[in-house]
Amino acid sequence: MYTFKDLAQKVSQYFAAEVFDGTPHNLYEPIDYTLADGGKRIRPILMLAATDLFGADIETARYGAVGIETFHNFTLLHDDLMDQSPIRRGKPTVYRKWSPNTAILSGDAMNILAWRYFLKTPHPRLHEILQVFEKTSMEICEGQQYDMDFEQRNDVRISEYMEMIRLKTAVLLGCALKIGALYGNATDGDIELIYNFGIKLGLAFQLRDDLLDAYGDVNTFGKQTGTDIRDNKKTYLLIHAIDKASESQRNRLLQLFSTTPENADNKVREVLDIYNDLGIRQDLEYEIADIHNDAIRSLDSISQPDERKNTLREIANMLLNRNV
Amino acid sequence: MYTFKDLAQKVSQYFAAEVFDGTPHNLYEPIDYTLADGGKRIRPILMLAATDLFGADIETARYGAVGIETFHNFTLLHDDLMDQSPIRRGKPTVYRKWSPNTAILSGDAMNILAWRYFLKTPHPRLHEILQVFEKTSMEICEGQQYDMDFEQRNDVRISEYMEMIRLKTAVLLGCALKIGALYGNATDGDIELIYNFGIKLGLAFQLRDDLLDAYGDVNTFGKQTGTDIRDNKKTYLLIHAIDKASESQRNRLLQLFSTTPENADNKVREVLDIYNDLGIRQDLEYEIADIHNDAIRSLDSISQPDERKNTLREIANMLLNRNV
Repeated sequence: MYTFKDLAQKVSQYFAAEVFDGTPHNLYEPIDYTLADGGKRIRPILMLAATDLFGADIETARYGAVGIETFHNFTLLHDDLMDQSPIRRGKPTVYRKWSPNTAILSGDAMNILAWRYFLKTPHPRLHEILQVFEKTSMEICEGQQYDMDFEQRNDVRISEYMEMIRLKTAVLLGCALKIGALYGNATDGDIELIYNFGIKLGLAFQLRDDLLDAYGDVNTFGKQTGTDIRDNKKTYLLIHAIDKASESQRNRLLQLFSTTPENADNKVREVLDIYNDLGIRQDLEYEIADIHNDAIRSLDSISQPDERKNTLREIANMLLNRNV
Repeated sequence: MYTFKDLAQKVSQYFAAEVFDGTPHNLYEPIDYTLADGGKRIRPILMLAATDLFGADIETARYGAVGIETFHNFTLLHDDLMDQSPIRRGKPTVYRKWSPNTAILSGDAMNILAWRYFLKTPHPRLHEILQVFEKTSMEICEGQQYDMDFEQRNDVRISEYMEMIRLKTAVLLGCALKIGALYGNATDGDIELIYNFGIKLGLAFQLRDDLLDAYGDVNTFGKQTGTDIRDNKKTYLLIHAIDKASESQRNRLLQLFSTTPENADNKVREVLDIYNDLGIRQDLEYEIADIHNDAIRSLDSISQPDERKNTLREIANMLLNRNV
């Protein structure tokens, strides 16, 4: 069995072996820029862990792992352009460093490149693997569209928000694990369980992100807190607060979330005061714990010896117990 | 054997059976808008013709045909945004009718949707088919990047231009025919021949387009002539003229191609005068005829009875003998 650290090293080696120095340079340099410096690479690590769980050689999943991370980075590249985000992983985003057209085209190429990687490894279940990848890719586009749609709406319901983050974030974790399990030739039942583990992990992870953005310690979380409030982003916290608020609190929240003051410190403080008044933080912490437990129950039910599940358990804890 | 008209009808029926009414609507409506109204649909028709040539049931290629046309329309959608083209097939382009973000995301979804279609039909040679499709998709991105790069350069050579149009236009015709032949389980030799037929057809088609833009009859060609000259586009005509020109003609051409006058009639007339002086039109017509002959030689060499090749011959003539 490989530990998380082993798998992270493997993924690093896999990417170090891939070279993106083709021509035309203006197409390939942004791809190299995006893929070279990493990020957490959680998705390929999950894929390898799943393949390992079911007792197959993790090298079977090598190119699938590179493929899913390449796809993930394509979505970030295009999302950054659509959201006009200037910085990613401490560096200028591609559309800023080059141009919007470069971001569009090199993103398109990375989307295609992901398929190249998946096609590199013949496998008896390759057709299934590709269908899972295709379905997931499409769902992620749907999630991004819902996210953009929600920016224009003031009546988003919690169920709609949960479906949006399922599509935008959770399905790719589920997909990584499911494909890893397919490489490992798991049974249909185990494949469903590991997919559910991934979905729940993804939901809990995203909700944790919402929580940390409002309540995280800037030193451990690594980014400024309150940015969702500053940017008027509709997160679980806001939607739930609006549901639970008195009429005057609701009106005040809607008013605050329609302004973008130069100095937003007072706005952030006032929003957090309302959240605290309503007990929003505790509600969300319970919700995250529920979903996390559901994830762990699915992992527990997989028909493999318990000690083989340590790495996935470790990753789940890592993702969900970042400091608040 | 199916005639061109039969195949065009089949492709129409195939698309009529596909419904793009999913949610979120803001993602799927632009896809429906783009795919519903057609265009010439040459690529799926070529694919079906190739499958038919090798004696297989054209229904085998049904979803591949829908897939390749979906991919082609994805590239047009993103190209229109990158080139800021306001009109496509007489209608506003997606980024104009909706927004740049909608064009990016619905294009991404169409790129993925193309794979969904290819995955719909299991086939003993599906892995090969997908690899041809992936390689071609990547080449088309490279072609588009070269095209954008060339806009910034004044020293593009004919060989570079030919490579650009090979990547941007010709490989997708070659790919359509090659995949059709794979569905038809053709021999490796025949697959290479039909691919070369497609590449040469694509090159001749694009060069014909360059020629018609400068010399076409607006009534038969269907679009305004001289637009490449107005837009300072580097086509075969200009690059070849610069190669062949005297120093004073070259300087004048470069000067004319660095201006965008409100009324460009005089500019167009002066450029055409220089082309005519240098015999550029005749040179290009010879070049097209050469490439066309090369295409036909490849078609002739395919190890199938001559009468089975009538439909592909018909399409080749249709594409290349549009009125000047």
